[in-house]
Amino acid sequence: MRTLKLTLSYDGTHYVGWQRQLNGPSIQQHLEEAFAPLCGDVPSVVGSGRTDAGVHALGQVASLRVSFDIPVVNVQRALNMRLPADIRVLDVEEAPDDFHAQFSATGKLYRYRIATTEVVSPFDRWFVWHAPEPKNVGAMRRAADVFVGRHDFASFQGRDSDAEDTVRTITRVDVRDTGRELVIDVEGDGFLRHMVRIIVGTLADVGVGHHAPDAMVAMLEARRRSAAGRTAPAAGLTLVAVHY
Amino acid sequence: MRTLKLTLSYDGTHYVGWQRQLNGPSIQQHLEEAFAPLCGDVPSVVGSGRTDAGVHALGQVASLRVSFDIPVVNVQRALNMRLPADIRVLDVEEAPDDFHAQFSATGKLYRYRIATTEVVSPFDRWFVWHAPEPKNVGAMRRAADVFVGRHDFASFQGRDSDAEDTVRTITRVDVRDTGRELVIDVEGDGFLRHMVRIIVGTLADVGVGHHAPDAMVAMLEARRRSAAGRTAPAAGLTLVAVHY
Repeated sequence: MRTLKLTLSYDGTHYVGWQRQLNGPSIQQHLEEAFAPLCGDVPSVVGSGRTDAGVHALGQVASLRVSFDIPVVNVQRALNMRLPADIRVLDVEEAPDDFHAQFSATGKLYRYRIATTEVVSPFDRWFVWHAPEPKNVGAMRRAADVFVGRHDFASFQGRDSDAEDTVRTITRVDVRDTGRELVIDVEGDGFLRHMVRIIVGTLADVGVGHHAPDAMVAMLEARRRSAAGRTAPAAGLTLVAVHY
Repeated sequence: MRTLKLTLSYDGTHYVGWQRQLNGPSIQQHLEEAFAPLCGDVPSVVGSGRTDAGVHALGQVASLRVSFDIPVVNVQRALNMRLPADIRVLDVEEAPDDFHAQFSATGKLYRYRIATTEVVSPFDRWFVWHAPEPKNVGAMRRAADVFVGRHDFASFQGRDSDAEDTVRTITRVDVRDTGRELVIDVEGDGFLRHMVRIIVGTLADVGVGHHAPDAMVAMLEARRRSAAGRTAPAAGLTLVAVHY
């Protein structure tokens, strides 16, 4: 048996998300079905974590155990021939036996794009949140700094989350203003369901003056979803990289 | 009566092209219908020229005569509220009475993207031609230089073209190699049907050694479509700007 590590990019627009679901096509399902001719059966492929419906990936990572001995470069070609063009396998590598895309992950980098121009380019329409209201970027940066560190993010998880441990360490929340977009990079050791989208939605609330930057402290302490701001739309979010 | 000049960007993937046609939705039809509530009737909107099905625009220009006196900024907003998100009005200006998007145009800039990597990013899939075969970029540049100047481009027009005058002046054919893409900018005073796509297809043929760069001279002299190379796919092409 070999363990393979796959790096994937996908345009999540037309999918219910990473994870197999009954209500529509998922990235995981397409990938598992693309493996079937190589494996002789539909294998189970593990992802580093779920991405929501409409969320994109530049560097999602998946792993699986296989018994075939096809070279990795041929595995990559065979998968890309079977996968739809909005899912691409960027790399296939041999990994240690105990490599597991989810449990071996030590961190993740997400990027969120907020289009601040009055008109959104047709080419960006599935990849940004259009929120043109003028924003105080300095206030957003001060609020962002509050999230950095080890905190209980119970207030910043979707209501249907079932995580028992809601403590995570965030190493970076950068807000970059390109003049046309606010690009927010969020990096940490792990993320709760909707956590990046709630952080971004809350930062946008701060930007338009709904909350002061130092209100983030009380939001974290409250440990309930209703204390934090809104959930930013899925389309603006991209999983950039998974660290191991 | 006022004359309005509109600058538009569109993702041409889901359209039969700029021009109204019976076999599917066009940019022109959407734009004319978006104007209807302002004009009281569906007006005729003139474009700088057709773009083919699947061809994109960063700066297509259109014009029309209107009798309403709504400020241009409100016209832009009203149009963008009615248009689908893959068509955006970037600018609306007052133009001289005799301005005509097609007849007043003095030149156009097109850009063509050839993806040369083995794997195409999901985010580029509708915007590039995937042609990963190794290419001699120096030979492509030498061939490109032959097109610059005033020439009869009868060999470089689609078979169904009905242009009487096939002489055009090309001011620039640049081939840029980004390592992942060949980006070809073609600028000139006007273009025949499919002309940019046939020039690009022929340059790609040169790149893989099917023709020598100096074969372009005989191709131009032949004045028949069969003398030139293939037609590059529509998806890689973008109308960048129209000059007046």
